[in-house]
Amino acid sequence: MKTISKPKIGIVDTTFSTVDMGAMALDELKKNYPQIKVLRHTVPGFKDLAVECQRLLKNEKCDIALALGMVGGAPIDTQCAHEASLGIQMAKMNAGKHILEVFVHMNESERADGSIDEADLLALTQDRTRKHVHNAVWLVCDPDKLIKRAGTGRRQGRQDVGGIKS
Amino acid sequence: MKTISKPKIGIVDTTFSTVDMGAMALDELKKNYPQIKVLRHTVPGFKDLAVECQRLLKNEKCDIALALGMVGGAPIDTQCAHEASLGIQMAKMNAGKHILEVFVHMNESERADGSIDEADLLALTQDRTRKHVHNAVWLVCDPDKLIKRAGTGRRQGRQDVGGIKS
Amino acid sequence: MKTISKPKIGIVDTTFSTVDMGAMALDELKKNYPQIKVLRHTVPGFKDLAVECQRLLKNEKCDIALALGMVGGAPIDTQCAHEASLGIQMAKMNAGKHILEVFVHMNESERADGSIDEADLLALTQDRTRKHVHNAVWLVCDPDKLIKRAGTGRRQGRQDVGGIKS
Amino acid sequence: MKTISKPKIGIVDTTFSTVDMGAMALDELKKNYPQIKVLRHTVPGFKDLAVECQRLLKNEKCDIALALGMVGGAPIDTQCAHEASLGIQMAKMNAGKHILEVFVHMNESERADGSIDEADLLALTQDRTRKHVHNAVWLVCDPDKLIKRAGTGRRQGRQDVGGIKS
Amino acid sequence: MKTISKPKIGIVDTTFSTVDMGAMALDELKKNYPQIKVLRHTVPGFKDLAVECQRLLKNEKCDIALALGMVGGAPIDTQCAHEASLGIQMAKMNAGKHILEVFVHMNESERADGSIDEADLLALTQDRTRKHVHNAVWLVCDPDKLIKRAGTGRRQGRQDVGGIKS
Repeated sequence: MKTISKPKIGIVDTTFSTVDMGAMALDELKKNYPQIKVLRHTVPGFKDLAVECQRLLKNEKCDIALALGMVGGAPIDTQCAHEASLGIQMAKMNAGKHILEVFVHMNESERADGSIDEADLLALTQDRTRKHVHNAVWLVCDPDKLIKRAGTGRRQGRQDVGGIKS
Repeated sequence: MKTISKPKIGIVDTTFSTVDMGAMALDELKKNYPQIKVLRHTVPGFKDLAVECQRLLKNEKCDIALALGMVGGAPIDTQCAHEASLGIQMAKMNAGKHILEVFVHMNESERADGSIDEADLLALTQDRTRKHVHNAVWLVCDPDKLIKRAGTGRRQGRQDVGGIKS
Repeated sequence: MKTISKPKIGIVDTTFSTVDMGAMALDELKKNYPQIKVLRHTVPGFKDLAVECQRLLKNEKCDIALALGMVGGAPIDTQCAHEASLGIQMAKMNAGKHILEVFVHMNESERADGSIDEADLLALTQDRTRKHVHNAVWLVCDPDKLIKRAGTGRRQGRQDVGGIKS
Repeated sequence: MKTISKPKIGIVDTTFSTVDMGAMALDELKKNYPQIKVLRHTVPGFKDLAVECQRLLKNEKCDIALALGMVGGAPIDTQCAHEASLGIQMAKMNAGKHILEVFVHMNESERADGSIDEADLLALTQDRTRKHVHNAVWLVCDPDKLIKRAGTGRRQGRQDVGGIKS
Repeated sequence: MKTISKPKIGIVDTTFSTVDMGAMALDELKKNYPQIKVLRHTVPGFKDLAVECQRLLKNEKCDIALALGMVGGAPIDTQCAHEASLGIQMAKMNAGKHILEVFVHMNESERADGSIDEADLLALTQDRTRKHVHNAVWLVCDPDKLIKRAGTGRRQGRQDVGGIKS
């Protein structure tokens, strides 16, 4: 795999999300990788992420894209996330490039009474989005970093679980 | 992303729907964006929306399409909506353009006794269809408007939920 | 959308079905549109419909196809219908033409005791197949007819439910 | 549909299956259609059938393929069969040719106590595999035979249910 | 099927997995087939496996790939595995080559109290990964070996179940 010295990263988020995920990704990129070129777009909902990422990868020559979406808590939302996710698989295959799917499900932060713990949702979204920014950069610029982390139980959004000691 | 000065929008709705969604979309477009060219077609059911949108995007050179469908309340209808939605993902990827999926599920307006609240269904359909008309125009003509709305919890059909204050 | 003056319609049905759906479609076409060219093929089961329709649309230059299938009543049959239906979406996208999916689920005619009401199943199949023949013709020859019916709650197999009065 | 005088049939089965389905298909072909050319491959599991069939249809110029697989009885196996089946739909669309999916679900032969009736499973597999060999030959060499059987309730694996008398 | 004398195998695993599956595959290859060229990459999660495998097959000219992933125990993980698996089907069809999907579901090693038996998970992962390495080699270098094993109830991860005696 050829590593790319001057990569261009596409970031796509949604107006549906209750958290500005695109701003988080931009901030993490600027702080850590100020030399990397970034294109940031926003679409209405997560079903619109796939084709926008494909456009960034194919028309705008981005090397990788981050698809940032938030999923509602109703059963129909889970089905919609499934459709969005399959669209992202199609887009990856068409472009022959990676799209990191950064989806936060609102019910990951659901309290026992069914209400949403907004502080937890925000922290979860921060952690997942920012960690995947590094994954994206490593995929295009430093793949060996990922090989060293193989099988180490990495998690985005929550704490790493670590690898099983054999 | 290049913005398009003289866009052409495709609208496709169905004979299955109990509401004339295409007329709503046309009305919203004419009132707000009289200069935009529109092509409006109708297909039998929502499974027919995807290929008709693809035809509008590829053969008729539309810049974006709205797929307007109503989904019945039985479990099999939910599966059919899933198939229709995956077809729309395929169509987007083939055309490399956006198709906004504007689906109204009849059971969104279901009363406790299982009957449909038709006034609510109508209002819901109006709100979702008309708001997505603006999303479609912004996607092709004014993408910065969407970036400003990123992470602000926008909803179509119901009231916006707003963003989480951090 | 250019209308086609001398259309060619493909009809595909199955040996699995307990009703000769292809014969119904042929009969409706001959009675109402004797000038239209028809190609009729039969495949073993409904999972074979998609590729046969694609062959008719791409190799035999049909303008539209009807995929006529009957779905058994077991849960696995519902999953199989889902696969068949996604295959049909793929075929439409590849051909860039419509395929009307005319599926009858045996459990639509199930009595309270779980047995099948064959007379109802037959009537349902007749109504759904024959109405979709007209939809197919209108799609290729007279699309304005469909626009006039937009949002009017049309059903195939059962009575139309009509539009909501606003 | 042009019929093919000297067809070439691809047979793919699995090492996962507890029954040698490929041998059954070969035997049925040799007994009934000794003149037909056959290519037989084996893959590890049913998820590998689709791409092997595609290779036979596209690279080896087979006219049709049989995808012979056995599905375990756990819920996850049903999901895996679904994925395998969608892969087969993709392969058909890419090749523009038929692949007959001959899947036997182990729980079709489950006794009330949850154990598998191996004799029944074997008989079921024989019947389904051998009948589909004829369907494959008819599809490429004698499509009229299938049209004559349209709507007659044919089943593979169990007895035909017959058509509804109208 | 032409066998390949100097094959090149792609191995892709994840940082999500709690076991270094890539290392297991590499070890099995080196011990048994030291002459085979190997390319090993690591991606963040199992949804990223498909496009990386496609890249190895299409851009890096690998003859076959192993997609090594671990699936968490929550219901949403099962849906995600489904999406990852469909992506792998797409990648195979695009490349026209095999990708062996080696997925370990954490709940395969779940104790009655819901905790994970890590020793069992490790053994299961070893067995499944190493056996599939041989399947991959046989598919490209020695397909007759697989034909001889047709219908013999082979399992990866657990003991073979064997074929049904007829």
